[in-house]
Amino acid sequence: MDIRIVPRALVLALSLVGASAFASEALVFQTDFGLKDGAVSAMKGVAFGVDRTLPLHDLTHEIPAYNIWEASYRLYQTLQYWPEGTVFVSVVDPGVGTERKSVVLKTRSGHFIVSPDNGTLTLAAEHFGIEAVRQIDEKTNRLKGSEKSYTFHGRDVYAYTGARLASGAISFEQVGPKLPAEVVTIPYQPAVVEQDGTLKGTIPILDVQYGNVWTNIDEALLGKAGIHKGDNACIRISEGDALKYEGKAPYVSSFGDVPEGQPLVYLNSLLQVSVALNMDSFAAKHQVQSGANWHISLKKCN
Amino acid sequence: MDIRIVPRALVLALSLVGASAFASEALVFQTDFGLKDGAVSAMKGVAFGVDRTLPLHDLTHEIPAYNIWEASYRLYQTLQYWPEGTVFVSVVDPGVGTERKSVVLKTRSGHFIVSPDNGTLTLAAEHFGIEAVRQIDEKTNRLKGSEKSYTFHGRDVYAYTGARLASGAISFEQVGPKLPAEVVTIPYQPAVVEQDGTLKGTIPILDVQYGNVWTNIDEALLGKAGIHKGDNACIRISEGDALKYEGKAPYVSSFGDVPEGQPLVYLNSLLQVSVALNMDSFAAKHQVQSGANWHISLKKCN
Amino acid sequence: MDIRIVPRALVLALSLVGASAFASEALVFQTDFGLKDGAVSAMKGVAFGVDRTLPLHDLTHEIPAYNIWEASYRLYQTLQYWPEGTVFVSVVDPGVGTERKSVVLKTRSGHFIVSPDNGTLTLAAEHFGIEAVRQIDEKTNRLKGSEKSYTFHGRDVYAYTGARLASGAISFEQVGPKLPAEVVTIPYQPAVVEQDGTLKGTIPILDVQYGNVWTNIDEALLGKAGIHKGDNACIRISEGDALKYEGKAPYVSSFGDVPEGQPLVYLNSLLQVSVALNMDSFAAKHQVQSGANWHISLKKCN
Repeated sequence: MDIRIVPRALVLALSLVGASAFASEALVFQTDFGLKDGAVSAMKGVAFGVDRTLPLHDLTHEIPAYNIWEASYRLYQTLQYWPEGTVFVSVVDPGVGTERKSVVLKTRSGHFIVSPDNGTLTLAAEHFGIEAVRQIDEKTNRLKGSEKSYTFHGRDVYAYTGARLASGAISFEQVGPKLPAEVVTIPYQPAVVEQDGTLKGTIPILDVQYGNVWTNIDEALLGKAGIHKGDNACIRISEGDALKYEGKAPYVSSFGDVPEGQPLVYLNSLLQVSVALNMDSFAAKHQVQSGANWHISLKKCN
Repeated sequence: MDIRIVPRALVLALSLVGASAFASEALVFQTDFGLKDGAVSAMKGVAFGVDRTLPLHDLTHEIPAYNIWEASYRLYQTLQYWPEGTVFVSVVDPGVGTERKSVVLKTRSGHFIVSPDNGTLTLAAEHFGIEAVRQIDEKTNRLKGSEKSYTFHGRDVYAYTGARLASGAISFEQVGPKLPAEVVTIPYQPAVVEQDGTLKGTIPILDVQYGNVWTNIDEALLGKAGIHKGDNACIRISEGDALKYEGKAPYVSSFGDVPEGQPLVYLNSLLQVSVALNMDSFAAKHQVQSGANWHISLKKCN
Repeated sequence: MDIRIVPRALVLALSLVGASAFASEALVFQTDFGLKDGAVSAMKGVAFGVDRTLPLHDLTHEIPAYNIWEASYRLYQTLQYWPEGTVFVSVVDPGVGTERKSVVLKTRSGHFIVSPDNGTLTLAAEHFGIEAVRQIDEKTNRLKGSEKSYTFHGRDVYAYTGARLASGAISFEQVGPKLPAEVVTIPYQPAVVEQDGTLKGTIPILDVQYGNVWTNIDEALLGKAGIHKGDNACIRISEGDALKYEGKAPYVSSFGDVPEGQPLVYLNSLLQVSVALNMDSFAAKHQVQSGANWHISLKKCN
């Protein structure tokens, strides 16, 4: 009899402990608030108040103000490195207080994103797939006492709902009514190989810290264009119709494969084609920026 | 008998677990150190060494150097979103090494602030009330081996004491001797409605990321001045006696209620009257800054 | 018999709980990535995926790009304030993809540093001693599915290995093969007292937030040069052979001991000789920077 009791005590003890100490999913915040004031901390305080064992982490709070495209890109870039079940709260919300919907996207990869449905979900929906979308029911999923505030949904609705979802206080179904499996998207040029072997794509983002130029062209497409390690690529970069850079660089494995200051083509940490200078900023030197309006082409030219 | 043992095992197990995994209060840091060096990390390392289950979070580390007023404002702005029992450690301390007292303020809301008593506690004391003030006894509440350092109280005394208080290693009483229930305060102009219906107040802070201008005038006072949603307000902003801006803007619910680039009056996330441009920086465009010396007036003018 | 069961249940329960909730060491990240993109968050996601109870913290992510000397200094400055067993992951890696080794240094103080062996370990090895160095075996210690990425060792190898080490999933021995007890070091001028009593040293770093000038000269050497509290010191600062500042300041306990705007010599939080202006930036005013090439001399001159 004692033998039966011991495991049962353990099971009970561990299931109680487990609910708080083990089962919580991470809650990961992204905003364009910066870290100079108390806004991000207030969001975390609300989440901590929901469940003090919740692991609270950050994606970034330095999305340029109102830049929905970049918010979308950072989620796409980072989401897959967090485990299934992780809940992201993304607040880049120029339309706060207007009619945009507040939603939770569940991706096919099993991640959750709490966000205004304003284009922020474009790339995550496209790359990881839409499992389901639910609209946040603000009657039940809103910090008590916050009803009078019209301007900080990030804290009162998004952080609060994200924390309740990550902690298991509510299920995904309890977020609110199910919406059609679609999100508002920002149009952009996909990567293609043309018949003459020219690769075309866009510059979705810069690797800002180092000034490296990232593209939406993946390794497979590079092979399809016949560009292999050691080959040279002729590169053209334009903003809309205006040519901003024309040059040549070898496709190599890493920065150290070219002399300091020289250009290179390489695969970045997302395995996408990128252009850089070894130990210098390509973007700063050639005045290259990023966004749906920035185009790049590469062609083999040995 | 077995029936009695099972619960007892559980109670014991859970009380032991609970002491570390559940009972710890959050420790929330604020400084003017920035994040470029190791100072904030050293403070957290000391706190982690006190209790490795302690939830360590940040308010901000980007208080402008020596700006006690802004430190006070950030605490006031953020404190209420963290649960009762949360311990804040605030280190903006131009007088480090001089005679200012090192104290812990317990507010009537049940929050604790560990700080030099140099004005940092002004707004939290005023808005949340003083439950009690204790002076840190540095004989007992100081990191072992740190006695020779004269310049980093933040790490050796404040982080250490805050961590011990949040973890329950010491009680509030064990912080040190009780002081009179008062703190050093920075004088500033309160918000008032004059007889002719003019609202007067100060600009305690900017919403720095977006350039919105925040005031210390609350919603009730706005109503008392007869300004309701949809009304226009005539606005004057001055630094001391020098007029810096004069203009007119509608009082609306959210940014999207005015065209891009146009001014609006709205309630910010603290439900206080604020002035902004939709999708632009009011502060940058009109050279408005903040502090006890910056005044604002609003009057209905349809 | 019941008496025996209760403790056993507790021991089992607590040992299971303890493995996750109590035993994990902190994992502390340092990079030159900045916080504007998703790179740091991806590293933390990988670590969280290894063990979701792991305490994840930061040293700084604002090491100037490629500045190995400063990475080395920040580790030296901060390491001792984290408990024995703490695992640091430092990724300042201009040679990523080249032949530099990926290692884990165990210091004699019982701390671990996961880093490229490119000079980053210079000051920690010198000040805390080398207990052992192991090379990371990337066959076993690499995030599954990341084999094709050539450019983000920080996430795929360093964060992953650091998390496994901190969580106890692998022992230090399981990191990989033992290397000789030495690391790649950056040469720099040590602090000395010359026969005429002149103190010579270098300016390894600035206290960037305040513009204070830190040196590698400790308190004992100051005493050896006959400079005591209240004495004046004549100071010369040069970059290579070019004199940048010449002046006089008292050696005092704290900033408040001199009038605003006046220079002082004091011991910083690492108990090393530093030069500052009270309430102003010495570095900005006198155009002083830091690095192995910046020299300082002090001599008593009452």
